[in-house]
Amino acid sequence: MPCRDEFELIDWIRQRAQVGHPVIAGIGDDAAVLAGPGARTVGESQSAGRENLLVTTDMLIEGWHFTLETATPEQIGRKALAVNLSDIAAMAGRPTAAFISLALPKRHGRRLAEGLYGGLEPLAREFGVTLAGGDTNSWDGPLVVNVTLLGETSGRGAVLRSGARPGDRLYCTGPLGGSRAERQFSFLPRVELALRLHREFELHAMMDLSDGLASDLPHLARESGVAGIVRAEAVPIHADVSPDLPAPERLHHALSDGEDFELLIAVGPEASRDIEERAAELSLHWIGQVEPGEGCFLEVAGTRQPLEATGWTHRFE
Amino acid sequence: MPCRDEFELIDWIRQRAQVGHPVIAGIGDDAAVLAGPGARTVGESQSAGRENLLVTTDMLIEGWHFTLETATPEQIGRKALAVNLSDIAAMAGRPTAAFISLALPKRHGRRLAEGLYGGLEPLAREFGVTLAGGDTNSWDGPLVVNVTLLGETSGRGAVLRSGARPGDRLYCTGPLGGSRAERQFSFLPRVELALRLHREFELHAMMDLSDGLASDLPHLARESGVAGIVRAEAVPIHADVSPDLPAPERLHHALSDGEDFELLIAVGPEASRDIEERAAELSLHWIGQVEPGEGCFLEVAGTRQPLEATGWTHRFE
Repeated sequence: MPCRDEFELIDWIRQRAQVGHPVIAGIGDDAAVLAGPGARTVGESQSAGRENLLVTTDMLIEGWHFTLETATPEQIGRKALAVNLSDIAAMAGRPTAAFISLALPKRHGRRLAEGLYGGLEPLAREFGVTLAGGDTNSWDGPLVVNVTLLGETSGRGAVLRSGARPGDRLYCTGPLGGSRAERQFSFLPRVELALRLHREFELHAMMDLSDGLASDLPHLARESGVAGIVRAEAVPIHADVSPDLPAPERLHHALSDGEDFELLIAVGPEASRDIEERAAELSLHWIGQVEPGEGCFLEVAGTRQPLEATGWTHRFE
Repeated sequence: MPCRDEFELIDWIRQRAQVGHPVIAGIGDDAAVLAGPGARTVGESQSAGRENLLVTTDMLIEGWHFTLETATPEQIGRKALAVNLSDIAAMAGRPTAAFISLALPKRHGRRLAEGLYGGLEPLAREFGVTLAGGDTNSWDGPLVVNVTLLGETSGRGAVLRSGARPGDRLYCTGPLGGSRAERQFSFLPRVELALRLHREFELHAMMDLSDGLASDLPHLARESGVAGIVRAEAVPIHADVSPDLPAPERLHHALSDGEDFELLIAVGPEASRDIEERAAELSLHWIGQVEPGEGCFLEVAGTRQPLEATGWTHRFE
């Protein structure tokens, strides 16, 4: 987990980022939203109801996000693309093209590259993503994999983190916790489900759960200017969390392990009623609600405590 | 310079890349050309004369592309964006938005980040590029900077490497050689000149000179299925190459040093005549021609020898 200095550094870098043509929404969301080429102004692009471009990028580095002792190159390659697919899903977008930059340790460069692509390529095919370019380097350092993934929004536009409103219900798309053992490498990004939900319901806000609900919900709440409430007894706990643990510990895993890559969604009261009728079919879990105010809270047996962000903060973006 | 194994690895990775919706032209050029969002087929996008999207990515790694002993963080940050701007220029595109991924050595993370952005930001402003996002990490490893830059083509489309034809003349946009001392960090990407030339003349093919003319011309020749001839006496040698060196050595620097980031352009006979009349105003140097066949040759005093690719092959893409 990064120290305070590192969080300050990330904040400082985030302040460097800008919004301006062609960028409609930038840093602070799962992906940037850009006007497509040829749109002379952002307004023109938006008012025309034109599909927008989505761009996200994630760097995985050896010794921090993975080790070659505990993960195969195939797993690392797959995950490097999958985390970006999850970001595009979180905007309700469809992924299109990926760009892969590699810094390969010289001694095993060929073997590593074959393994990485052995994990990347099937997932790219499965999601209709074209591997369109990149930059490959060999060096004496550790393995670094950077994937930039492009996508496009449907005609309904992107779902941002900033649209949650008091009165919204919070849902997640699957059970949480225990992902660091194996699921972090094998999870299926929720691209199709997000597109379907976006088509059938009015989604106010959405993000993917990468650092754990307790770490991620505060981002959505802050971007939306609201408070987020999680009902402890409603949090779905994944079977990967040992049933032998005491209940509070199981809950802690579900809130804090991270690497779930499920989606967190805020939906208004009317759409919530429609969703409730089909919650099982949609595999959505109602876990809490949005209220006026700020901060995030865990509701346990009728009392509220601050939702502690003790998640595994593996990324700083 | 990478060994044979590494070139084979790059070839292997290039074979992994694909062309398919929305990718119109992929690996093998300075940037990928993509149909914009909303274009359902490549054909629709092209036939509509619609502006296309350009994407390029470059990873700079410590100890290979630079050392922190011989370059300042400001220089490294500026260069990380500048090499990508040069790639967009080489397609005759206009750059729009950049995404910066960093792996920062923990000990000096903040200082390095401030330096990198101190070099990046002014150049981004100068070229109208929005810093739209990225991914920041700290680790125990060396500094890694990955920049993905987006751009768009004008209504006239992109200029590819593959369009050179027998009878074309070859031009470059400035004198070559001696760049590794300082110019590699301070060069001005030829974005405006490329846009202007593309507007005023029919350009058949274009690429940027990053590895040295002797290494780069063969790429353009191979992609176009032609032979490239360079007239030794016509190669403009930069003042950064010591005048005290013997003439052959000066020529060798101009052909092989790399890091020039000038543009290499192939133009048909008719447009060549127009260009010749304004060569000085346009700062274009006529350095050779395109012929049927394959391979690249240096013409010295009427005899031809193979153009040896002894350039500083600093990138493998």
